[in-house]
Amino acid sequence: MSFIKVDPQSDFSFENLPYGVFSLDQNGPRHIGVAIGDNVLDLSKIKHLFTGKLMQHQQHVLEKATLNDFMALSHEHWKEARQTIQKLLSADCSTLKDDDKLRAEVFVPMSKVFMHLPAQIGDYTDFYSSLDHATNVGTMFRGKDNALMPNWKHIPVGYHGRASSVVVSGTAIHRPNGQTRPSEDEPPKFGPCRLLDFELEMAFFVGGGNQMGQPIPIEKAHEHIFGMVLMNDWSARDIQKWEYVPLGPFLAKNFGTSISPWVVPMEALMPFAVDNYTQVPKPFPYLQHDDKYTFDIQLEVSIQPDGASQSSPLCHSNFRHMYWTMKQQLAHHSVTGCNMRPGDLLASGTISGPEETSYGSMLELSWRGSKTLELKNNTGETRKFIQDGDNVIIKGFCQGNGSRVGFGLCEGKILPAHKM
Amino acid sequence: MSFIKVDPQSDFSFENLPYGVFSLDQNGPRHIGVAIGDNVLDLSKIKHLFTGKLMQHQQHVLEKATLNDFMALSHEHWKEARQTIQKLLSADCSTLKDDDKLRAEVFVPMSKVFMHLPAQIGDYTDFYSSLDHATNVGTMFRGKDNALMPNWKHIPVGYHGRASSVVVSGTAIHRPNGQTRPSEDEPPKFGPCRLLDFELEMAFFVGGGNQMGQPIPIEKAHEHIFGMVLMNDWSARDIQKWEYVPLGPFLAKNFGTSISPWVVPMEALMPFAVDNYTQVPKPFPYLQHDDKYTFDIQLEVSIQPDGASQSSPLCHSNFRHMYWTMKQQLAHHSVTGCNMRPGDLLASGTISGPEETSYGSMLELSWRGSKTLELKNNTGETRKFIQDGDNVIIKGFCQGNGSRVGFGLCEGKILPAHKM
Ligand SMILES: [Ca+2]
Ligand SMILES: [Ca+2]
Ligand SMILES: [Mg+2]
Ligand SMILES: [Mg+2]
Ligand code: NI
Repeated sequence: MSFIKVDPQSDFSFENLPYGVFSLDQNGPRHIGVAIGDNVLDLSKIKHLFTGKLMQHQQHVLEKATLNDFMALSHEHWKEARQTIQKLLSADCSTLKDDDKLRAEVFVPMSKVFMHLPAQIGDYTDFYSSLDHATNVGTMFRGKDNALMPNWKHIPVGYHGRASSVVVSGTAIHRPNGQTRPSEDEPPKFGPCRLLDFELEMAFFVGGGNQMGQPIPIEKAHEHIFGMVLMNDWSARDIQKWEYVPLGPFLAKNFGTSISPWVVPMEALMPFAVDNYTQVPKPFPYLQHDDKYTFDIQLEVSIQPDGASQSSPLCHSNFRHMYWTMKQQLAHHSVTGCNMRPGDLLASGTISGPEETSYGSMLELSWRGSKTLELKNNTGETRKFIQDGDNVIIKGFCQGNGSRVGFGLCEGKILPAHKM
Repeated sequence: MSFIKVDPQSDFSFENLPYGVFSLDQNGPRHIGVAIGDNVLDLSKIKHLFTGKLMQHQQHVLEKATLNDFMALSHEHWKEARQTIQKLLSADCSTLKDDDKLRAEVFVPMSKVFMHLPAQIGDYTDFYSSLDHATNVGTMFRGKDNALMPNWKHIPVGYHGRASSVVVSGTAIHRPNGQTRPSEDEPPKFGPCRLLDFELEMAFFVGGGNQMGQPIPIEKAHEHIFGMVLMNDWSARDIQKWEYVPLGPFLAKNFGTSISPWVVPMEALMPFAVDNYTQVPKPFPYLQHDDKYTFDIQLEVSIQPDGASQSSPLCHSNFRHMYWTMKQQLAHHSVTGCNMRPGDLLASGTISGPEETSYGSMLELSWRGSKTLELKNNTGETRKFIQDGDNVIIKGFCQGNGSRVGFGLCEGKILPAHKM
């Protein structure tokens, strides 16, 4: 128990303690913080209290403007740091609890902070690891019988994404301009994307790293997974359709990718590990592990049109639907010797579940625009894809016994396309 | 004319003056230098001599360990800096020429330096802009009639690559392990890549940058192109074939990409601009420009097997064969509002010419392994793809009137795959 009161509905319980980067002014100095309830604990102000055997030599990483240097340390360092934070916040530790002056200095109300990207992202990779999503998209474009590509159950399929345009939740995103070919009988057109979509995803930050040429074996993968965030992989479906053959999505994805600001450590998620998807055929040995490494994380996407007083849920999904695990993704990514760096971001791919209400994109929810979704906000408004002014909000949490381990919000509002 | 003697065959003439990052010990401090003849001019030691109207306020960028901060300045800054360097090296300027002590301090023999990546590469993108290459590969895999995808002449097709594994020339690269499916009737296999290839490419570094949401118009593209390097986009053809549908090349490309260390400024290349490829159909207005922006850069790839006393040329090509220009690539990349950052690397794609001897990959030279290349080193050795121990060497230069503007070497040796 902590001496800080936390609402049972709060994402940021004593069991969570996610890391983030905040500032008090939009452009002011950035500090590393930990969320607890409605508060942010400023680690830069208490770095001298990290006196454990490992962290006592690494206190300086806690006064950086990103989490990269902390992520670069070992899994053992993260564990010790978390123990120190748990102790400092616990009801039976007087260091912070009974020092009013120190408390006033180190706690900031969450309502007063500006959040930033938690790390400088060296490389960002997007996987495609939900069987339901891959099957849905494959069915739409190639028919039910050829829905899954022959490689899909052998390889955690993925592609390199654009790191520069990964932005923190709350950053508005312009609808992109680009080339599309609405009809195969006509020449392509140029203009604002007409089929703008979200993709409900989660992503993990790499910690530690590997030398180029030295794969991360799956037995060591967990030690290189620092923690997780929510992600919206904004997607321009009409641009994607025209451009993606044969080298994959490019401009359809590079205009913005939103992530939630609080990185939930894997230690906080381990109590919510559930059975992995049963994989048939059995993957190659470099992708095999027996321990549970998928997680019961409840996910919701909602939309708040410009001027609407409330948001309307579009879908409910769960991270447990993933076919490939994060360990498998990391072992696969590095099996060629590709070097992973602290702060690299690896995303799940769209997280769709088996039910129609659990599909993680408008593409699937509107089944390529053939169905109309009525918004549940009593305005009669409908959607097939995302409109200008729409704020798309992703939430996610693990429900514990009387408390939550949650991710906060990943939201982003779509602004009109620039005139070209 | 410079007071430094430069061999007419040297890549690093007074007309060139490329920028690079070097150190005197492999792990020693890194400095920004300029190559001239067999010498490197250490800019960190003469930063106080940059007293022009713009650079006098930015001297500090010249003592950094990468070129990023210099690249982040404007096109006008680069121009002024180059004028300063030209003046300091010219035969009629006494500042360096007549100061033996200063000269001894600021010039280092090129044979004594270790070269490093010129910049921290935030994002790396690879295009596919040679018509001959795209046609060759398309013909092999889809037949002559469907060789070019319908989008190819409308879009400078490209994909996001892996930035972490871009390495400087001279870095050895392990043959990757990975999944392949040698026969469509059999299950996939795991093991060392059997069809390892090079791709003869060039790449440019972005300078300046744009805010997310604000495209770089093609009229401004030149101001955001800092300079060029040679590139070898190592490719695992068998891994690529099995993995790339539907999201593009991933592990087949992420185990290493080699670039030459010296960044040749666009100003040095402008005298070698030649007519652009005639584009039919005419591209969309955001991709149109009239000025010449392809370049007569002679390119050669050779191979030196382990233990061989000399290298054997595999092909000769020229950058002038490119269909899409670098301006078009940059305008396209950012048209969605994708933010480009100083130090981003954008590559041409394999540069093949129309003749069989100008193909820029073993895939094309051996026509998918159906032909055997005899090495021209009198050993009777042959190749279809790259073998362990092979050093692949790319050279490139513009031939001026009695002097060259060249790129030096982009080389890399293939080491055996790690045992898994
Ligand atoms: Ca995605
Ligand atoms: Ca390439
Ligand atoms: Mg995205
Ligand atoms: Mg490569
Ligand atoms: Ni704007």
